[in-house]
Amino acid sequence: MVSQDMIKLGTAKSVIRELAAFGAARSAVVGAENVLDFSLGNPSVPAPKEVQDAIVDIIKNNEPKVYHSYSSGAGHDACRTAIANNLNKRFGTDYTKDNLLMTCGAAASLNIVFKALIASNDDEIMVLAPFFPEYTVWIEGHGAKQVLVPCKDDMQLNVEGIREALTPNTKAIIVNSPNNPSGVIYTKEEVEQLCALLVEKSKEYGHPIYLITDEPYRELVLIDGLEVPFIPNMYDNTVVCYSWSKSLSLPGERIGYVLVPNKVEDKMVMAAVAGAARVLGYVCAPTLLQMVIERCVDVDPDLTVYKKNRDLLYDGLTKLGYRVAKPAGAFYLFIEAPDGDSEKFSEKAKAYDMLVVPGTGFGSKAHMRLSYCVETEKCEKSLAVFEKLMAEYK
Amino acid sequence: MVSQDMIKLGTAKSVIRELAAFGAARSAVVGAENVLDFSLGNPSVPAPKEVQDAIVDIIKNNEPKVYHSYSSGAGHDACRTAIANNLNKRFGTDYTKDNLLMTCGAAASLNIVFKALIASNDDEIMVLAPFFPEYTVWIEGHGAKQVLVPCKDDMQLNVEGIREALTPNTKAIIVNSPNNPSGVIYTKEEVEQLCALLVEKSKEYGHPIYLITDEPYRELVLIDGLEVPFIPNMYDNTVVCYSWSKSLSLPGERIGYVLVPNKVEDKMVMAAVAGAARVLGYVCAPTLLQMVIERCVDVDPDLTVYKKNRDLLYDGLTKLGYRVAKPAGAFYLFIEAPDGDSEKFSEKAKAYDMLVVPGTGFGSKAHMRLSYCVETEKCEKSLAVFEKLMAEYK
Repeated sequence: MVSQDMIKLGTAKSVIRELAAFGAARSAVVGAENVLDFSLGNPSVPAPKEVQDAIVDIIKNNEPKVYHSYSSGAGHDACRTAIANNLNKRFGTDYTKDNLLMTCGAAASLNIVFKALIASNDDEIMVLAPFFPEYTVWIEGHGAKQVLVPCKDDMQLNVEGIREALTPNTKAIIVNSPNNPSGVIYTKEEVEQLCALLVEKSKEYGHPIYLITDEPYRELVLIDGLEVPFIPNMYDNTVVCYSWSKSLSLPGERIGYVLVPNKVEDKMVMAAVAGAARVLGYVCAPTLLQMVIERCVDVDPDLTVYKKNRDLLYDGLTKLGYRVAKPAGAFYLFIEAPDGDSEKFSEKAKAYDMLVVPGTGFGSKAHMRLSYCVETEKCEKSLAVFEKLMAEYK
Repeated sequence: MVSQDMIKLGTAKSVIRELAAFGAARSAVVGAENVLDFSLGNPSVPAPKEVQDAIVDIIKNNEPKVYHSYSSGAGHDACRTAIANNLNKRFGTDYTKDNLLMTCGAAASLNIVFKALIASNDDEIMVLAPFFPEYTVWIEGHGAKQVLVPCKDDMQLNVEGIREALTPNTKAIIVNSPNNPSGVIYTKEEVEQLCALLVEKSKEYGHPIYLITDEPYRELVLIDGLEVPFIPNMYDNTVVCYSWSKSLSLPGERIGYVLVPNKVEDKMVMAAVAGAARVLGYVCAPTLLQMVIERCVDVDPDLTVYKKNRDLLYDGLTKLGYRVAKPAGAFYLFIEAPDGDSEKFSEKAKAYDMLVVPGTGFGSKAHMRLSYCVETEKCEKSLAVFEKLMAEYK
């Protein structure tokens, strides 16, 4: 009588949740410091001091009505203007507050954009594997079809594969770079090829194919001088979904935005985004946090620990003989299991109290995801475990 | 190409938004203190000091990771336990954290419950007029049919009308008491009749008819000694949607819950609720606010101003000859326009810089909604305007 689909989703086995339960049980026995938990995407770098200062300052110097009242559905003007100015300064754009709608995080942003763009059950949303598994839940939840296209062996864009999978029903492609779970940043050349392909195919099909960029890791670039291609400057029909969950370490606060540039051809996309936010019950983004973002939008994340962990693990693991996609951003490594069975590897690792997530749900059974947003000491300790595990395969 | 339904929702004319724009324009000319704006449901009573103290205290005494990290999808255990304890103390129930799922406010709660319960396009959700107009958007957005049943002239439950409108497709009835827009609290006797009717009809149809209680105003009872019937204790298949937007004056912070008591027959309802929260992109409720609620759940709202405004307006308006549904809770009055045309009245009121919302969207063209969560001085001033307006009709 109640929705069987929702029951299925609510009771679905979650590998990450099961690992967390195992980790909690082992922590109680051996101490949390001895469980090498690489399963979660909760940033280990604390939210910058500017955020705490902003919260306390806003509360001390304003009446509660100022920071606790509803904002408009799109969000506070001052917050959206501050974000537009930040983007304009960095990317040479000319956005205003009217290009932005504040949301309760990237998951909300993506759901709002899916609901806005998907107009029929025939619509296809293309997802590039490896990918964040909740995409599937949301795309199917909004009645569209997910079309999976694997990336190349180096986890870079497979533009020829995308060409073959495009159909007149392709409504959009999700691009998530820096990527969860691979940590790869798609190269400018390959993104350019993708954009050229979509211009060609949009013309051929007679309607735009949207690029939906999922960018919570945009600011987490761990190679000095490397730039993440800013896709709205490369392809007109781009809609950006952003969140401060990772860049300001605020995952619990649910604060992000949808950006619809003026270059998007269909001038009704932002109206559809506003309608979708309304119909999904997202009245407004948390208002105290909107005021915090207004003040902290120019604060850069501290990447020192993530860089250190990345170098330590990537160098150590490749030296041990592991094949690892070259991680340039985010805080993930996507490691090939020695025999191509990540589920078996994840099980074996538990014997050493080390938690890594099998890649099956991310679109590759051969790989496992390691979230290195943890203490550096645990990264160091893990190398000895990885060495022992590799020995088991030889 | 993009969703035409979403464009329609995103561009829909909003009477309240238009009144707000008019109010802002007039404020610039005559000063905000001279615009009698009764259009919005933003609480005028500030969030209690305990809330500000809790936020500052949490920040000063914890690492950011403690309050900014993801919680589980259902929410922090400590927060949910505190809420369960509060309810148990007041209503003699035996809830635990497992009966609660934290949400981003009542709009999120309702959307999650609709998504969980609605299993087919034939499903009907019954709405009792007058009602909060977004119900329609959400019910239709989740693919069900809205069935409207008007309340009686005194805005109390019309149990016979509900009986006539029930069908084997009735999935749920929304009960919102204290009511937006009428301020009426449904009497215990009539709620009992409704519950008895639903027991009878559930049996007849061979499946439960759910009561979805939308309770953001539960704590806003303005008549001493009057009790709001706690429906989960009267009817087993009740699912509660709550928010602290009004009781703690936190509308911008988006914090609330869904309560599924153990008495609900179908033991999979909470699983479906969890699945629905997931598929709609509600990753978790804002975590800093979850910690605030944990500490402030026992704080009572200060109702002094609302009581004063209610008495002043209800007494003054009835003396002037207006017919007003007897308001017992929330901070709304639902006033009959002298000639039954609230849209005309609202237009006339603008000439005096007074903003009242025509009731058409709430399900009654004859009435207008007056939100008296404003300074008492404005309520006093408004009576002179209501007097002049009444004179225009004579």
